[in-house]
Amino acid sequence: MLVQEMTVDECRAELQVVNFGRLACARDHQPYIVPVYFAFDGKHLYGITTPGQKIEWMRANPRVCLEVDARPSHDLWMSIVVLGRYEELPDAPEYGHVRAQALEILQKRTLWWEPACVPPERQARRAPIFYRIHIEEVTGRRATPVAAEANVDRP
Amino acid sequence: MLVQEMTVDECRAELQVVNFGRLACARDHQPYIVPVYFAFDGKHLYGITTPGQKIEWMRANPRVCLEVDARPSHDLWMSIVVLGRYEELPDAPEYGHVRAQALEILQKRTLWWEPACVPPERQARRAPIFYRIHIEEVTGRRATPVAAEANVDRP
Repeated sequence: MLVQEMTVDECRAELQVVNFGRLACARDHQPYIVPVYFAFDGKHLYGITTPGQKIEWMRANPRVCLEVDARPSHDLWMSIVVLGRYEELPDAPEYGHVRAQALEILQKRTLWWEPACVPPERQARRAPIFYRIHIEEVTGRRATPVAAEANVDRP
Repeated sequence: MLVQEMTVDECRAELQVVNFGRLACARDHQPYIVPVYFAFDGKHLYGITTPGQKIEWMRANPRVCLEVDARPSHDLWMSIVVLGRYEELPDAPEYGHVRAQALEILQKRTLWWEPACVPPERQARRAPIFYRIHIEEVTGRRATPVAAEANVDRP
């Protein structure tokens, strides 16, 4: 297995393909993880969710971490970690433009309207919350089987 | 899609089957997620890793969150979130018994010795660190397609 650090550009390219990850927030030194769908426009990560614990926590402390990984086998995987800052996009005139942008980028992926792992009846009862994550740091690692790497090197 | 809260017993049963998840720690209000292999003995979650940022953070603040999920399709998924406390199991006589326990439970799963998403050369250079997580709260949700549920109800 060959493990390599990914460049920032490689991480960003993956974030444009993957649309499901885990978002961590923290309150009183207690981290908390939720699965989320997201969309990346090349600058921000956009998401939609319903009110709940994670929104309360992110309003109180906007520092977040988003992780995505793919692991088809033990020696073929990639993992990306984003450190960033949560910004809510409320339904107010001054956010009209950015909410339209969020909707546009979210609509490009399947199931964008379906928050991950939240009961639909709870989604239906409450107004959805749009948010975006400002990326402050992104790192990633990728592993490939050594045999596959060797093949690539052959003429 | 029918979404149900899982009971604590259902969550614990899943944790004994799944052995890969994401672990979040936090420092200065900044959460951080890493993918990890783990093993569950019915009481604690055990893991092995190498020194690095997450160990430094968990030594400074032992509050952690472990999340596992499975998502074969958009309407068939489960997600479990554990809130807990990190405890390091150092290579010292008073930890001999619990390290042996950790090793026994970790050996029951494939690839237990391979920390998730860490370059093998970095693993080889440093002594591995055993740790366990004391579970303080566990919650979970499970979704099933409505059609499948309807079939189950039929005589």
